[in-house]
Amino acid sequence: MSRKKKRHLIPDAINPVYHAQVMGRLVRRRMKEPGLTPGTLVHTGVQKVDRVRTTYLDFDPSHVSEAEVDSVDACFPFKSSPTVSWVNVDGLHEVDLVRRLGEHFGWHPLLMEDIVGTSQRAKVEEYEDHLFVVLPMLRWDAEHNQVDQEQLSMVLGDRYLFTFQERAGDVFNPVRERIRSAKGRVRSRGADYLAYALMDAVVDSCFQVLEAIGDRTEALEEQLLADSGQSAMIQLHALKRELIAMRRAIWPMRDALAQVVRDEEDMFTPETEVFLRDVHDHAVQVVESVEVLRDVVSGAVDLHLSMMTTRTNEVMKVLTIMASIFIPLTFVVGIYGMNFDWMPELRVWWAYPTLLLAMAALAGGMVFYFRKKRWM
Amino acid sequence: MSRKKKRHLIPDAINPVYHAQVMGRLVRRRMKEPGLTPGTLVHTGVQKVDRVRTTYLDFDPSHVSEAEVDSVDACFPFKSSPTVSWVNVDGLHEVDLVRRLGEHFGWHPLLMEDIVGTSQRAKVEEYEDHLFVVLPMLRWDAEHNQVDQEQLSMVLGDRYLFTFQERAGDVFNPVRERIRSAKGRVRSRGADYLAYALMDAVVDSCFQVLEAIGDRTEALEEQLLADSGQSAMIQLHALKRELIAMRRAIWPMRDALAQVVRDEEDMFTPETEVFLRDVHDHAVQVVESVEVLRDVVSGAVDLHLSMMTTRTNEVMKVLTIMASIFIPLTFVVGIYGMNFDWMPELRVWWAYPTLLLAMAALAGGMVFYFRKKRWM
Amino acid sequence: MSRKKKRHLIPDAINPVYHAQVMGRLVRRRMKEPGLTPGTLVHTGVQKVDRVRTTYLDFDPSHVSEAEVDSVDACFPFKSSPTVSWVNVDGLHEVDLVRRLGEHFGWHPLLMEDIVGTSQRAKVEEYEDHLFVVLPMLRWDAEHNQVDQEQLSMVLGDRYLFTFQERAGDVFNPVRERIRSAKGRVRSRGADYLAYALMDAVVDSCFQVLEAIGDRTEALEEQLLADSGQSAMIQLHALKRELIAMRRAIWPMRDALAQVVRDEEDMFTPETEVFLRDVHDHAVQVVESVEVLRDVVSGAVDLHLSMMTTRTNEVMKVLTIMASIFIPLTFVVGIYGMNFDWMPELRVWWAYPTLLLAMAALAGGMVFYFRKKRWM
Amino acid sequence: MSRKKKRHLIPDAINPVYHAQVMGRLVRRRMKEPGLTPGTLVHTGVQKVDRVRTTYLDFDPSHVSEAEVDSVDACFPFKSSPTVSWVNVDGLHEVDLVRRLGEHFGWHPLLMEDIVGTSQRAKVEEYEDHLFVVLPMLRWDAEHNQVDQEQLSMVLGDRYLFTFQERAGDVFNPVRERIRSAKGRVRSRGADYLAYALMDAVVDSCFQVLEAIGDRTEALEEQLLADSGQSAMIQLHALKRELIAMRRAIWPMRDALAQVVRDEEDMFTPETEVFLRDVHDHAVQVVESVEVLRDVVSGAVDLHLSMMTTRTNEVMKVLTIMASIFIPLTFVVGIYGMNFDWMPELRVWWAYPTLLLAMAALAGGMVFYFRKKRWM
Amino acid sequence: MSRKKKRHLIPDAINPVYHAQVMGRLVRRRMKEPGLTPGTLVHTGVQKVDRVRTTYLDFDPSHVSEAEVDSVDACFPFKSSPTVSWVNVDGLHEVDLVRRLGEHFGWHPLLMEDIVGTSQRAKVEEYEDHLFVVLPMLRWDAEHNQVDQEQLSMVLGDRYLFTFQERAGDVFNPVRERIRSAKGRVRSRGADYLAYALMDAVVDSCFQVLEAIGDRTEALEEQLLADSGQSAMIQLHALKRELIAMRRAIWPMRDALAQVVRDEEDMFTPETEVFLRDVHDHAVQVVESVEVLRDVVSGAVDLHLSMMTTRTNEVMKVLTIMASIFIPLTFVVGIYGMNFDWMPELRVWWAYPTLLLAMAALAGGMVFYFRKKRWM
Repeated sequence: MSRKKKRHLIPDAINPVYHAQVMGRLVRRRMKEPGLTPGTLVHTGVQKVDRVRTTYLDFDPSHVSEAEVDSVDACFPFKSSPTVSWVNVDGLHEVDLVRRLGEHFGWHPLLMEDIVGTSQRAKVEEYEDHLFVVLPMLRWDAEHNQVDQEQLSMVLGDRYLFTFQERAGDVFNPVRERIRSAKGRVRSRGADYLAYALMDAVVDSCFQVLEAIGDRTEALEEQLLADSGQSAMIQLHALKRELIAMRRAIWPMRDALAQVVRDEEDMFTPETEVFLRDVHDHAVQVVESVEVLRDVVSGAVDLHLSMMTTRTNEVMKVLTIMASIFIPLTFVVGIYGMNFDWMPELRVWWAYPTLLLAMAALAGGMVFYFRKKRWM
Repeated sequence: MSRKKKRHLIPDAINPVYHAQVMGRLVRRRMKEPGLTPGTLVHTGVQKVDRVRTTYLDFDPSHVSEAEVDSVDACFPFKSSPTVSWVNVDGLHEVDLVRRLGEHFGWHPLLMEDIVGTSQRAKVEEYEDHLFVVLPMLRWDAEHNQVDQEQLSMVLGDRYLFTFQERAGDVFNPVRERIRSAKGRVRSRGADYLAYALMDAVVDSCFQVLEAIGDRTEALEEQLLADSGQSAMIQLHALKRELIAMRRAIWPMRDALAQVVRDEEDMFTPETEVFLRDVHDHAVQVVESVEVLRDVVSGAVDLHLSMMTTRTNEVMKVLTIMASIFIPLTFVVGIYGMNFDWMPELRVWWAYPTLLLAMAALAGGMVFYFRKKRWM
Repeated sequence: MSRKKKRHLIPDAINPVYHAQVMGRLVRRRMKEPGLTPGTLVHTGVQKVDRVRTTYLDFDPSHVSEAEVDSVDACFPFKSSPTVSWVNVDGLHEVDLVRRLGEHFGWHPLLMEDIVGTSQRAKVEEYEDHLFVVLPMLRWDAEHNQVDQEQLSMVLGDRYLFTFQERAGDVFNPVRERIRSAKGRVRSRGADYLAYALMDAVVDSCFQVLEAIGDRTEALEEQLLADSGQSAMIQLHALKRELIAMRRAIWPMRDALAQVVRDEEDMFTPETEVFLRDVHDHAVQVVESVEVLRDVVSGAVDLHLSMMTTRTNEVMKVLTIMASIFIPLTFVVGIYGMNFDWMPELRVWWAYPTLLLAMAALAGGMVFYFRKKRWM
Repeated sequence: MSRKKKRHLIPDAINPVYHAQVMGRLVRRRMKEPGLTPGTLVHTGVQKVDRVRTTYLDFDPSHVSEAEVDSVDACFPFKSSPTVSWVNVDGLHEVDLVRRLGEHFGWHPLLMEDIVGTSQRAKVEEYEDHLFVVLPMLRWDAEHNQVDQEQLSMVLGDRYLFTFQERAGDVFNPVRERIRSAKGRVRSRGADYLAYALMDAVVDSCFQVLEAIGDRTEALEEQLLADSGQSAMIQLHALKRELIAMRRAIWPMRDALAQVVRDEEDMFTPETEVFLRDVHDHAVQVVESVEVLRDVVSGAVDLHLSMMTTRTNEVMKVLTIMASIFIPLTFVVGIYGMNFDWMPELRVWWAYPTLLLAMAALAGGMVFYFRKKRWM
Repeated sequence: MSRKKKRHLIPDAINPVYHAQVMGRLVRRRMKEPGLTPGTLVHTGVQKVDRVRTTYLDFDPSHVSEAEVDSVDACFPFKSSPTVSWVNVDGLHEVDLVRRLGEHFGWHPLLMEDIVGTSQRAKVEEYEDHLFVVLPMLRWDAEHNQVDQEQLSMVLGDRYLFTFQERAGDVFNPVRERIRSAKGRVRSRGADYLAYALMDAVVDSCFQVLEAIGDRTEALEEQLLADSGQSAMIQLHALKRELIAMRRAIWPMRDALAQVVRDEEDMFTPETEVFLRDVHDHAVQVVESVEVLRDVVSGAVDLHLSMMTTRTNEVMKVLTIMASIFIPLTFVVGIYGMNFDWMPELRVWWAYPTLLLAMAALAGGMVFYFRKKRWM
């Protein structure tokens, strides 16, 4: 029961599930023992899908083929096929699948370890004939008011692109649609442009998260100004944490993209470079927006606190005025309530009205004093 | 009605319209779906004019011609004309207009996307035969006490300059006047000098915004010191936000101008470079002023809070002194107001005056104690 | 007794033992006099083991031999043996042992001084034919809720690796096991890969500390929200200190590893370089996590404070409402408790009920006023 | 009258004059319209002298001549004279004077604009055959307790040096004296050494301002500790602002001097370079001192606030103790002041002494309780 | 007397002597007029010894000679002697002495000015055949609980080393002892190694200051937690200032040493370079420790403040509970103390016990309400 009570005080955002999430985003590789052979494939993090699902899209300017495959072995031919192939894997807990792919395509053991070990920082690593990119995919979970984070790993080869996600559901459907319908440039360009298009979609989706956080900030702020309860405060605090977590995911993404733009990696054609510069610009904007939102949320908290201080001051003034006026008067009337035999002033008829007038004068003096002190 | 009440507490600066503005400045591309083909022209932001209006100024040292055109096709000849042409477009929602211009003049799709997609960061991008500049145009909206922000895009070619604004009304009239009247250097120099002159006007206009914010800070600060209400506090908080938003617009502008100065872009002649260095200096000053204003506003808030704390302390002292003196006395007179049969002290004639003296002594002792504690 | 009382207020985390630890981590070389000959071997810090214990693991792809030796002289042949030798020394107070080793293997006097002088910063120093690495080994001491820190010194030669620890017990057992069982790459690679494997284990163990701190933060935060006592506050404060101490240990470690990656030291083969890059990435993650945890702990403290302020405000309101309603009423009834002879209103029969009604009206007015002020 | 009242609360430092100054230091070029031709000479800022006064000092190792001239045309010959000439102009509002000089000596229009447009940042600009230096001259205005800021512009040619100040009165008299009396190196060296000597005097004068601020900080701090009024707080706040304004002037000065040292401008001989390095060192010290003073002032404010909090806590304790002891007792005596017919305890003779004892016991218990809680 | 009172409130650490010291460390060159010829030798700061004392140590691997000299002229031969000579001067007010030395050994006028003008920042300046080093010597003054700072200037020539201190007493005795007894390397190496040995002693002595500050922090922290008085707070504040002053001295020292290591000055042999790298490491540790101590002290202040807030909240709750329970009851008994003729309830026998029961119920209800609100 005390548990339930606490829940009442602690809104959803700070319940145990939430904590697991926040702390999970801080601490990497829970299950992996220190000292394990590097390159040991251990899936860390929560398994988010029941079954790993592998699909591919194979296309060149003139054709598209698309299918879900049962075994990744079906993707082996893409290594040397002249078409552009995009293989997407949803679910990371079948480490064997990743190992088979990695061994066929010649990926470094650490690369494979990073694919299955979630909570990596965003990064770009260049290998001899492929490029490894890790990006965070963010989504606003409106039910729990928190940022949902998933790791997207991309291995970009000369004519193929592998993407690994923690679960089904992503922001790539418009890109898939463009491939299917041959809209835009994506069909006529190589795997590098496809990789760019996916990065662009990932970065763009951050703006939706920012918008949701912005809306929530606005709502909480109005709530804070309207009533002085603790609930809005606690939720604003939770939002601040979401921004900490988001910031932690976003900064490395920006740096990784800056590295891609700067290094002019061989994997990207000069035409695609121009577009990468654009993605990088957007990532910079996301970072700036997170910082601004942090400022805005901090400002709201500060405003609330200073309003609290001001209100306490006002409340105190009312109390002090009331007490200062009536406590002395109560003392005075107490005097004449005493039962001493010898109290001559009780016997004269004009004593009572005189006392009433004196007390009125005293009260008036007090009011005048408080007005002078600008308390009234 | 509760809505109206809240409005009373929340001054204009934090009403919904305001929020939409602040948040809008934080989050880019509301309407654009993640995953859309890059280079898709989608107008984002609020449409601020009814009708797009296109005007041009074509001049060389010996002549000037000026007109409003119905169709942008009328501007196509400027591509190869030997005179300097400045085409200004007010309103961005007719994306088709931008596309036609872009295709004729050979602009990159991402450049065109940036022109119509407002809320870009200030930036400078160099293309083969043209330079793309995005700058924020700031204006102080005295009615709502907020910074009004508009995106200015400039495409600088060899002999032409295109400017795109979100609405009519800008700070360029003095420049136009100088062209018409052949005052200053602008008529005798190329499009690059014209671009510089416009940048200079944009940066200069920031000083007017700063001045308005400075004046408002001053007014609010006096209000804060004079009365202890919450209204000035909330408005100061709103001003802090305006500074956050302004800072966000100004920093990238400074960096973009630094890049122009540093890179010695081919588009600018060495003579114009000297002037660009000057504009950059001014941008640095704007940035510094924003930082200083942030410090000043924060200082005002801190001062207010510490004055509140001091005042609460004073109020508490008054209350404590009053209560500590009179509550014990009231207790004492209460004792002799009791109706016990056997209270021998009530019967002797000197009891009453003695008690009065004793109470006076008690009160005097209290006053002495509080004086010693420096509370009085 | 007063001592005991204070202890009650100050939880374990801030007791004298704790202080010695925190301050010990701040101040280096307590016992060493300024001005001593540099390179003088003086063991500083607390002696943590009774007896120095020296063990070695000597292996090549085809064999492993392992033993504990009584005298370090038994390790002298490893200097020129073609196998890879890993000598581990637990306990640093026998400075003579280190000197004999150093003289045989040709180590610089300052290197030897650093091995026995604990509380060094993490660092990497390159000498002609060996590399000196100092890293902190962190462990969460759940009993005292603090981070336990130990200095690990490594001297990496061409075919040998010496490790010096302050006490027995480390995170290297999995590595030892891999050597014994010839699992992974470690048997087939050189001493440099072994050094990498140990560094990896050290950095990985930091994540366990972070997880422990994360769990504790969470527990203290729930405690803070549930009750308003000072105990959770003081413990959160102690945790903040642990993070300061941890941060101090971790930042130099990151920089040292960055230096290894950047300098491409001759001691490491290019194959091992790839792995070092991975360790460096992990160190960066540790640093980021410490920063995030600092933000989280600070946020919790701030939230607590603002909740305190809000609660004080609420308490004040209740007091003010009660006092403002009843103090004037008490004054009024006091008036009619006075014993003046001439108080005509006491004599009329309707005076009493009228007064009761008037007082009810007064109280009602007060309630209405406080409701309007939103205090009730 | 309310105006006068407010003045009482707001010390001199925050009155309108002060505000104009602070804000004026933040906002540049009040009167200049955005869009004016660059290089338009417009005097901004307040005119501080009635009449522009032009003086020169012309010297070589063997002679000195000194005069005040009516027209700047008298200085034209200095352009090609073999002696070193220092022309000083006090007052900037006669823009025509600057234009004539500039045209004769071949200065860039922007340079001239910067001379007459005050509130420039400190900067160094290199032109083909002259160097343009802008430095702030600071002075402590003891009457208004604020930092007085003036712009010093220097144009350093091969054999001439022009200095422009906003008003008469400067820190250069010792330098003038050294020239007249041929003391030191200044007579035997070129114009560059003279420029250095002036810069040195400007930077040195900052130390006097710092000393004044330090003294004032000390005085205000003692005042803060001695009494708890708001006056010292407000003045400390005003001092904080002065430090913000000073910092804003000083940082660019340091950077400008660093640029001179780093660039090894052609205008300075290697012998003078050594001296410039010294000036730069002093500027760094000024910057550091400003930062330290900011820390000191902030610390004083923090200390005051925490003392206020502690005092409020103490005041509250006294109030609570008094109220908790006497309010229940007053209630008890109130009971026996009631006039019920049937109150048997009023009739027994031992009731009164028993009640007195019981009340003493109650009060004693309260005192014991508060002692246990360490409130007394 | 009011002076004495204030002294009671302001502990030793903030008395006028202290202020002179803190401010003196902020402001340089009190007595020197701006505009004086650079290189003018003016002793600034407080004269700390009565008489300047000059001693020398002259040694080579095979001999040592040591003496105190009356006139510095006795040191002139060291310029060309083949032995290593270390001349130490205690006291700086005889500027003539420094001038004579400087002229003989060919030092730059600015170098000499820096020797006698104390409060220089730590720095390293390279001249043609000598190196000038300024370092702060710190010492903990346990009596006044403050950091005592003295300027050490070193001029390192090829075979000689001059050191200038403000007063007698330093941390170099162990070095002197090593020279006399031919222990360690110092006798067999050149003047550069001697300079290193002194720098090492200076940096090492900082750790003792840090230890003292650490101990004091600990003591004050325990005091803060044990009682809530202002004394510990004020002293902690004073300690914070000491850390500001120390930080200001230490950062430039670190930078100066970094410069020595980086520049590989010609004055130092490669063998000594290795040792300099070690000194620099220690300086970095000192800087880090100062930062950590600042964090620790700030944390202690924050903890104290939050405990104050919590305690105030508790005190308020007690007051509110007492007042809320007894003030209404007192009102009720007041009603029946009134002397109206017509108060029928006074006449019935069961009125009194009923009222007592009703009041008990009211009090019980209050207690229940406060328990529900978790105030009790």
